[in-house]
Amino acid sequence: MESSDNPVLEAIYARRSVRTYTDEPVADELLYEVLRAGSWAPSGLNNQPWRFAIVRDPSVKDELAGLTRYAKIVRSANVLVAVFLDEDSSYDVEKDRQGIGACIQNMLLAAHSLGLGAVWLGEILKNRDKVREVLELSPGLDLMAVVALGHRARTDQTSSRRELGELIVKEC
Amino acid sequence: MESSDNPVLEAIYARRSVRTYTDEPVADELLYEVLRAGSWAPSGLNNQPWRFAIVRDPSVKDELAGLTRYAKIVRSANVLVAVFLDEDSSYDVEKDRQGIGACIQNMLLAAHSLGLGAVWLGEILKNRDKVREVLELSPGLDLMAVVALGHRARTDQTSSRRELGELIVKEC
Repeated sequence: MESSDNPVLEAIYARRSVRTYTDEPVADELLYEVLRAGSWAPSGLNNQPWRFAIVRDPSVKDELAGLTRYAKIVRSANVLVAVFLDEDSSYDVEKDRQGIGACIQNMLLAAHSLGLGAVWLGEILKNRDKVREVLELSPGLDLMAVVALGHRARTDQTSSRRELGELIVKEC
Repeated sequence: MESSDNPVLEAIYARRSVRTYTDEPVADELLYEVLRAGSWAPSGLNNQPWRFAIVRDPSVKDELAGLTRYAKIVRSANVLVAVFLDEDSSYDVEKDRQGIGACIQNMLLAAHSLGLGAVWLGEILKNRDKVREVLELSPGLDLMAVVALGHRARTDQTSSRRELGELIVKEC
């Protein structure tokens, strides 16, 4: 299988965690398309437990930057999307968290396909309650990740994965 | 933005949970491509905590069918992929579960792009330990989901999602 024949596989294999961005703003149209792609993830009972907070305001970014060791990424990304689990929509926290992982992967692939760069930030969860307070959101929203978005400053990143044979534990 | 111009968005929006399959076998080449796509999900510290058990044997499928109310899907799918979290590779169970959600979403999108149908089965987690026993796997592997795969018997499924405006809880 040549992934170059298949644009979906090509995106899955070529997507990188992009942490440096140009100054070019992310158009609203592209941002909303990324969120819409996230919203089309599957979820148990189609409960769609994901919620999004969009941050472009530099002063809010600065406050969030103080809550993570990845302050530079948070400050330099043109847009941040804080992704929350809505506890009122939740039916099974474990499955909902998996579903939100699927939602974020859709966002990352959509961003890549639209020529944007994005990175999934999880370390900031150590301050999940403070993030919610900075954004003045209700306690029923539990932070799952922050996705930083911008136009890529470089396109030469490489990455690696284990061989498939190391991941297959059984075949019957 | 017309998703028809963008094959990645098109796949994200057109993918459906496929629960009925033809008798046509899933070629190994396609199956391994689906797993490889899963393995290219992002994970915290690139720890790649996902592991895969492949089930084609009808007698094993029958045993697994007895562990879920979705017995018919489990029996009729040409291949099942049980996806596990490898506790030895885990660094943060919450983030690892999200990462495995991203892995499964890659698998579902890859399957769609390869002309296959797939569905993410979570209800069987109520019997996660029994699934591991049927597959004779070590207790360090924790079942996250079963993905059923086959050639689609129908292509007319529709689905729906909330409007984006309902999902955006803040914009600043």
